[in-house]
Amino acid sequence: MSIIRHKTNARMSAIAIHNGVVYLAGQTGLTEEGAPKTLQEQAKVMLDKVDALLAEAGSGRSHMLRADIFLRDAKDFSAFNEIWDVWIPEGHAPARACLQAAIPRQDELLCEIIVTAAVR
Amino acid sequence: MSIIRHKTNARMSAIAIHNGVVYLAGQTGLTEEGAPKTLQEQAKVMLDKVDALLAEAGSGRSHMLRADIFLRDAKDFSAFNEIWDVWIPEGHAPARACLQAAIPRQDELLCEIIVTAAVR
Amino acid sequence: MSIIRHKTNARMSAIAIHNGVVYLAGQTGLTEEGAPKTLQEQAKVMLDKVDALLAEAGSGRSHMLRADIFLRDAKDFSAFNEIWDVWIPEGHAPARACLQAAIPRQDELLCEIIVTAAVR
Repeated sequence: MSIIRHKTNARMSAIAIHNGVVYLAGQTGLTEEGAPKTLQEQAKVMLDKVDALLAEAGSGRSHMLRADIFLRDAKDFSAFNEIWDVWIPEGHAPARACLQAAIPRQDELLCEIIVTAAVR
Repeated sequence: MSIIRHKTNARMSAIAIHNGVVYLAGQTGLTEEGAPKTLQEQAKVMLDKVDALLAEAGSGRSHMLRADIFLRDAKDFSAFNEIWDVWIPEGHAPARACLQAAIPRQDELLCEIIVTAAVR
Repeated sequence: MSIIRHKTNARMSAIAIHNGVVYLAGQTGLTEEGAPKTLQEQAKVMLDKVDALLAEAGSGRSHMLRADIFLRDAKDFSAFNEIWDVWIPEGHAPARACLQAAIPRQDELLCEIIVTAAVR
């Protein structure tokens, strides 16, 4: 049961795979141009990153096991769910939790997600 | 290594089971009548929900691997532990962490728990 | 697939091992003399504890899969990363997330880490 890592630097691997389970690093809505202003924009960037990483890991959004979501502002809960509920494939939603926490990397970040998924 | 999900809606599954491991969605003390006022009441409702879900998943509170606990108020730490320590079967406590965070779904929620457990 | 637990008390096990995966309880910089004053000191104590527990579990810091880091103060992000980046073995960084949250156990605690790792 070896560990396969992708996109590894001195701080983290974006992907770690072990025993059929994919662990993704926390993803945010940060782009090369900085953080978009709205929760909606950040959530879309964030979920696009999750899609790309899960594809790279041989998994996919219908194979998520656990998703821990952190919102900086509680008032964004409904706006986030509107995007999330559409993004989730019917019948394949993961175990989910949603907590309120800021993201130390950059105060403008409004959401972060930690995904654990199964290899396809 | 397929994924079995229970109580799945458009947002989350209350239970996801994969490769002998059970992932529960974050559980709170929310009832159909709303959130009880005290941490003690909410913690009891929350742990009852965990018991029911673990039973449904073919696991149980003595098979928990990891429990991430979030308290809205740090002052509730001792009160929560009084309930938790009695609830945990002797010799079977999970790896546990306890952080401070509010719960975006409803500001009255004082605690949330994310449980990962082993199938019996 | 039985569960092996180490350092178990009424509240938590410092280590739970199941199916080749090691779950550690949340670790902080707390010592028997209390919490050191600086983030740097606390981070070093915390990572020493992780090293000791992973060794006891038959794992190690190059076998980490997922690390969830919580900082009380966002301003400590850079200072924490300076220590973290050196501590991580080259090419073996885990999937990592870093959120902002206080630690209810003691307000002086500036950081906590939840580690999931693979058995060697």
